[in-house]
Amino acid sequence: MAKYVYLFSEGNASMRNLLGGKGANLAEMTGLGLPVPRGFTVTTEACTRFYNDGKVIAKEIEDEIFATLSKLEEIVGKKFGDPENPLLVSVRSGARVSMPGMMDTILNLGLNDEVVEGLAKLTQNPRFAYDSYRRFIMMFSDVVMGIDRMKFEKLMDEIKEKKGVSADTELDAGDMKTLSERYKELYLKEMGVPFPQDPKVQLIEAVKAVFRSWENPRAVVYRRLNDIPSDWGTAVNVQEMVFGNMGNDSGTGVAFTRDPSTGEKKLYGEFLMNAQGEDVVAGIRTPQPIDVLKEINPDVYNQFVEIAEKLEKHYRDMQDMEFTIEHGKLFMLQTRNGKRTAQAALKIAVDLVNEGMITKEEALLRVDPKQLDTLLHPQFDPKALKAAKPIAKGLAASPGAATGKIYFSAEEAAQAYNAGEKLIILVRLETSPEDIEGMHVSQGILTGRGGMTSHAAVVARGMGKCCVVGCGEIIINEEEGYFIDKNGRRYNKGDWISLDGSTGNVYGEKLPTVAPEMTGYFGTLMKWADEVRVLKVRTNADTPRDAQQALKFGAEGIGLCRTEHMFFDSDRIGAMREMIVARTEEQRRKALEKLLPMQRSDFEELFRVMKGYPVTIRFLDPPLHEFLPKEEEDIQAIAAEMGITAEELKAIITELHEFNPMLGHRGCRLAVSYPEIAEMQTRAVIEAAINVKKEGLNVVPEIMIPLVGDVKELKYVKDVVVKTAEAIIKETGVELEYRVGTMIEVPRAAITADEIAKEAEFFSFGTNDLTQMTFGFSRDDAGKFLEEYYSKKIYEFDPFAKLDQTGVGELIRIAAEKGRKTRANIKMGICGEHGGDPSSIEFCHNVGLDYVSCSPYRVPIARLAAAQAQVRNPRNKKA
Amino acid sequence: MAKYVYLFSEGNASMRNLLGGKGANLAEMTGLGLPVPRGFTVTTEACTRFYNDGKVIAKEIEDEIFATLSKLEEIVGKKFGDPENPLLVSVRSGARVSMPGMMDTILNLGLNDEVVEGLAKLTQNPRFAYDSYRRFIMMFSDVVMGIDRMKFEKLMDEIKEKKGVSADTELDAGDMKTLSERYKELYLKEMGVPFPQDPKVQLIEAVKAVFRSWENPRAVVYRRLNDIPSDWGTAVNVQEMVFGNMGNDSGTGVAFTRDPSTGEKKLYGEFLMNAQGEDVVAGIRTPQPIDVLKEINPDVYNQFVEIAEKLEKHYRDMQDMEFTIEHGKLFMLQTRNGKRTAQAALKIAVDLVNEGMITKEEALLRVDPKQLDTLLHPQFDPKALKAAKPIAKGLAASPGAATGKIYFSAEEAAQAYNAGEKLIILVRLETSPEDIEGMHVSQGILTGRGGMTSHAAVVARGMGKCCVVGCGEIIINEEEGYFIDKNGRRYNKGDWISLDGSTGNVYGEKLPTVAPEMTGYFGTLMKWADEVRVLKVRTNADTPRDAQQALKFGAEGIGLCRTEHMFFDSDRIGAMREMIVARTEEQRRKALEKLLPMQRSDFEELFRVMKGYPVTIRFLDPPLHEFLPKEEEDIQAIAAEMGITAEELKAIITELHEFNPMLGHRGCRLAVSYPEIAEMQTRAVIEAAINVKKEGLNVVPEIMIPLVGDVKELKYVKDVVVKTAEAIIKETGVELEYRVGTMIEVPRAAITADEIAKEAEFFSFGTNDLTQMTFGFSRDDAGKFLEEYYSKKIYEFDPFAKLDQTGVGELIRIAAEKGRKTRANIKMGICGEHGGDPSSIEFCHNVGLDYVSCSPYRVPIARLAAAQAQVRNPRNKKA
Repeated sequence: MAKYVYLFSEGNASMRNLLGGKGANLAEMTGLGLPVPRGFTVTTEACTRFYNDGKVIAKEIEDEIFATLSKLEEIVGKKFGDPENPLLVSVRSGARVSMPGMMDTILNLGLNDEVVEGLAKLTQNPRFAYDSYRRFIMMFSDVVMGIDRMKFEKLMDEIKEKKGVSADTELDAGDMKTLSERYKELYLKEMGVPFPQDPKVQLIEAVKAVFRSWENPRAVVYRRLNDIPSDWGTAVNVQEMVFGNMGNDSGTGVAFTRDPSTGEKKLYGEFLMNAQGEDVVAGIRTPQPIDVLKEINPDVYNQFVEIAEKLEKHYRDMQDMEFTIEHGKLFMLQTRNGKRTAQAALKIAVDLVNEGMITKEEALLRVDPKQLDTLLHPQFDPKALKAAKPIAKGLAASPGAATGKIYFSAEEAAQAYNAGEKLIILVRLETSPEDIEGMHVSQGILTGRGGMTSHAAVVARGMGKCCVVGCGEIIINEEEGYFIDKNGRRYNKGDWISLDGSTGNVYGEKLPTVAPEMTGYFGTLMKWADEVRVLKVRTNADTPRDAQQALKFGAEGIGLCRTEHMFFDSDRIGAMREMIVARTEEQRRKALEKLLPMQRSDFEELFRVMKGYPVTIRFLDPPLHEFLPKEEEDIQAIAAEMGITAEELKAIITELHEFNPMLGHRGCRLAVSYPEIAEMQTRAVIEAAINVKKEGLNVVPEIMIPLVGDVKELKYVKDVVVKTAEAIIKETGVELEYRVGTMIEVPRAAITADEIAKEAEFFSFGTNDLTQMTFGFSRDDAGKFLEEYYSKKIYEFDPFAKLDQTGVGELIRIAAEKGRKTRANIKMGICGEHGGDPSSIEFCHNVGLDYVSCSPYRVPIARLAAAQAQVRNPRNKKA
Repeated sequence: MAKYVYLFSEGNASMRNLLGGKGANLAEMTGLGLPVPRGFTVTTEACTRFYNDGKVIAKEIEDEIFATLSKLEEIVGKKFGDPENPLLVSVRSGARVSMPGMMDTILNLGLNDEVVEGLAKLTQNPRFAYDSYRRFIMMFSDVVMGIDRMKFEKLMDEIKEKKGVSADTELDAGDMKTLSERYKELYLKEMGVPFPQDPKVQLIEAVKAVFRSWENPRAVVYRRLNDIPSDWGTAVNVQEMVFGNMGNDSGTGVAFTRDPSTGEKKLYGEFLMNAQGEDVVAGIRTPQPIDVLKEINPDVYNQFVEIAEKLEKHYRDMQDMEFTIEHGKLFMLQTRNGKRTAQAALKIAVDLVNEGMITKEEALLRVDPKQLDTLLHPQFDPKALKAAKPIAKGLAASPGAATGKIYFSAEEAAQAYNAGEKLIILVRLETSPEDIEGMHVSQGILTGRGGMTSHAAVVARGMGKCCVVGCGEIIINEEEGYFIDKNGRRYNKGDWISLDGSTGNVYGEKLPTVAPEMTGYFGTLMKWADEVRVLKVRTNADTPRDAQQALKFGAEGIGLCRTEHMFFDSDRIGAMREMIVARTEEQRRKALEKLLPMQRSDFEELFRVMKGYPVTIRFLDPPLHEFLPKEEEDIQAIAAEMGITAEELKAIITELHEFNPMLGHRGCRLAVSYPEIAEMQTRAVIEAAINVKKEGLNVVPEIMIPLVGDVKELKYVKDVVVKTAEAIIKETGVELEYRVGTMIEVPRAAITADEIAKEAEFFSFGTNDLTQMTFGFSRDDAGKFLEEYYSKKIYEFDPFAKLDQTGVGELIRIAAEKGRKTRANIKMGICGEHGGDPSSIEFCHNVGLDYVSCSPYRVPIARLAAAQAQVRNPRNKKA
């Protein structure tokens, strides 16, 4: 029979999957002899069982919980529900990976009408006892029963109003007792039954609530954004209460062993005396820096510093710890590997290697490739920054520069985003888990309240978003949608501001940004990554400018140059349209003649920039109607320009109309219909390569035929390419190597890859189209129903962002295997957007591809992800 | 080293793949000691080699041809190019399967200026010699060099005009000599070089021409229509000439051992005295029935009858033979299994079993399932037929009834077809291979000239089309597009006529047709088929009428009932639209309430008709916008009807617009978004089944969820179905078995079929969508480029008509295997249009599916094809 409940003393850090991160670390700290309040963990397997059983806790699990509770009572020497000597517990969730703010916590569980009186006597502090009771009733009602918290707050406000006071601290024991009575009445009214007095009932209901919260919408969204499978489940930690709010010799705080923002090696944290843990994290009162504790209670401070050092050495990573001081005694409530900014992650990883704590390979695994994004995105232009004057300053919670239009609610931000706005700043008094989606779509977050460990700060750092918190200098009116800066100027919804997440400065204008420099720790880690990885990293680039940027970021070639993008320029679209409108091959060839020199010079430039690195050029791919105008006035204008009537042009547009353009006349199908297009493009590539070769650069162009589904299709186009290329090579007398390959982006191509490899000298997996066709939905149309799929947990991630390894991945596996069977050394890469996604890159590594190709700004991410893949699953470097 | 050339005496009938059908049978007849003019065959492998070598005959093959020619000279005792004793040969193509009229033939090869004089002396018949020479020059110029035959005809006409005669026979030896001189001049003018005098050059050029003709557009089209792979190639038969045109003791003819139209056991054929073979086949002169030969030359007739019987016994099938009589001596030029009508095929197959010549299993293989189509399609309504008066009578060349609008060229017919017209009759003076496509799109063919073995007759029988030939009673003017009947009435392009292919009658009106009766030979063969086959045959039917029809044809259940078709009825579309326009679940449920009783009664009727056979009901599949109006006036009208403004309706239509509807919000995605639709449909199915069950019928409905790509998607919808169904079963207290399964039509479903089988109780392969998504093109859009694909030989068949076994088939194989791995006894079928295609049915059999489902009229075809599959590749019947 499975064991579903573990005392902290029975577990350790390696049991993270079973006990959750928090539970495993509490067990580990217990084992290390640190002062941890005693308790036990209900396992993640119990959670999974809960869902499998239809959201019910099985009898055997309930029995095991109570049996372990009895053991805990014995150890602690207190009894659940005993007014003389009551055991009170906290109930907290704890999944495998930390999900900050996502899960719900209940404190002071075990209180009831009798026990609260006993507690008052025992502590000789009736105010504390009744404050604890009314807090518990509210938390239980809110978290377990789903009664709106605001209704309780209102009762509190009524009492304060009646007494003519404004702060909670001004209420006395009697007020708190009254309040707990009123809270119970409210509970009865809302639920139809009295507030449960049996602590065991309270406990089981709380455990269920934690399990249920695993499926609350915030948690589901968080998991989707962070690639956490829903079948992991959460554990529940039941722990003896310790109270930071027992008076001025009590307190609570959080701290990091290194600065989570910069990575600097020094204890970094905040605390509040006479407070419970939630008060610090929620950002309601602004806490004091950890150093201040040294003055208040040097013994406790020194003990904490010692523990912190011990924990960092033990875990060999920067720790994020929670502690409580009860009547001058220190208790450790949590430790975990601390979340950190990308900059801090890099510095800590490199420092730990230099300190001899970890190896280079381990260091590579310590940085989340996705985090690098923040380092790679633009910073403010220093000149503009120098000239700009801040309108306010807050805490620099998460670095980077952000500029955007302001919105005052997560919904507004999301709406603006969906309407196509990309530069958004979310401005809030403080954030809560409900704001996650809104934060996700924003460039930066600005809050009026809260400290460096407030919700906004922690989440923004995790997301790698620029964030300024606790900016009390501005007055925010969320409801009416404006804020007033320190000079009295008003900023309305939609106005531009800029945030500097590294200084905390806020600017009342749109500031220009510049590309970041990559040096120091970044460079070191990237060097290590390059030493380790076997997967090459190329870039998707259509212009010399993009190619240049990608080279700076370490790209080793172009994996996808989309030639059609070259035709959209205003000076070219004319000739392109002429080509499309052509009714005879002759007319078409005439138009193509005009396009030839443009394409040729584009390729020359690209080859020059890429200095001998491989360049893969994809031939014309989109349906031709994409190049034609859609609006009446444009049609009129363009027809005139083209020397035909608007009616003629409309007739052509109608003729080119397709029911399903994604599944229409595009890709190599165009070249099959009009081989002269492939001929022109071959001429442009080969002549450009020869010209650049004459300048002394070695160029081996790779010509890629898109949308192939049958080897004969590829052969037909390849024959055109080879015939044209060979003729030019013969004409010019310049020897030139070149390759002809194909995209694998149609399911049939994957299935028949053995046939296709007979003709293709390389494969490039076009996972955007392959995903669309394998799933049978188009990216443009799926938006309408994907939200339903996420909320109903049918899909847990966006298959266009993260490769679907089960379905699409299986096709890639089949294709790679079949391709190699025919042509052992066939070069294979991926050029869909998945090429920049770490988990997809790991898949590419495991399946034996030679390279990934991604957008320029994703190149460093890909380099690191490729290195991590090699550390996790080493494979031989190809000869 | 491969052997590329075989003397007839070196081959036999089993070498068909190498020698082609004609060559193998000539060899076989030679072996049987029949009077066959001697010769040799250049193999199909030589043809393949010719193409691989870049359309060049390799030196070694050329050498082998000439070496074999020398042997032939020795055997025959004549010499190629020797004026004293010249060897003349015919050069004919011969592929593995006969392709009537597709390939080009050259006669009298070996003639030149010297030889023709020798021949004149030798035969003492200068007219014959020079007629042969000028024919040879013309054929060589036309077939080998591609010079327009009309230019030669014109020279002939000039001479006739000058002499004031009208028939060729009125020209004398001198005229023929003059003509051959003129022909040579024309050749020189056209080609820039003189007509080749070296017979060896003539021979090699002719062989090349035959090889090239394998790729001529007519041949390519024919192969596509008949599923013949292009890599088979054609052989070339070089054979000593015998002359049917040497005078009145000479002649030529074709005959069948049984009547190819009815199957009646009697010698059936036609001949012409003093004629060459082409004269009979081309239908220029109308030949005499074979019986007449008995009177003209009883010895030859008796000898021929004896040979015919011998051949039929030898080949154990009805033979189609060509013969020539030269100066009273009989020569066999060809034998092959004769093409026949569906009726004849059935009768012959059953008769041969009864005569003890073949087994029942062999008999099943003797009927092409596709041919049954003709038997299954409507005949004229007997009453209407009785009342109708024929306007003309021709030869009943291919049975069946056809009614349609008349067109006078293949192009016009094809245009009308492409414009959406489905009832077309092609009216021609005579047909030629260029007309194939036009014949294909027509319901029937009527010609003014030619006999039962003319091009039109042979091809129409092959296609299973109704055909009346040699209808001299009408005067056809192809150019101006009309014909005049025997009463002087004029019928213009686009007028309606009707053809009776069983009587030869032509009617000047549109006649109503009725469904055919299936009895006699048909019934016998179908009974044998049912005894043999293991694959079940179901039908795709949405209405009780279709279901009834299918049952008559032997369907064993409904494999696909498309529920959406039930919503398009004018009395239902209103409620459907109301459902689509609904903005809330409540509104939607209200509209669904209206649809429920309609669906329920539909299903009740269907269940009643199907009398306990399984019925698979697919839930709503198409995108919702398909149900909304498109034209401005319709929008106005429907908005008014729905009680909303036109603007509101337009907004809804716009909102529902999809870029790629095929890849959009449809199938189970609708049920995921609006589970209440699945709920209503489940209710309709289950309640209907219970109601009908109460009437005493056993119903086990199968609910099919479309467009599933992920098991969780299926599970979500299945949960809705099961919950609803169980509630109803509980409510009513009636026990009901039902199954929930899915379509496998998205590539991802095939790839993850092991997962999907955890939830699906059955799979139905939706090969229409699966083909679209696997190839990455939509049926609606592919028309634009598929023609190029056929003409460039990238595709050899339409993947929507015949299953692509390499790609789509591989996915089916994978899915079937994975599905069985999870659920060993999972029921699997196919319900795409491929379910009615014989080669696809064979695939389904081989891959182990349980059933195929096809349109009602295809059911008998499927039954026969399934039986053939079992005869060819026996598999165990499922328990």
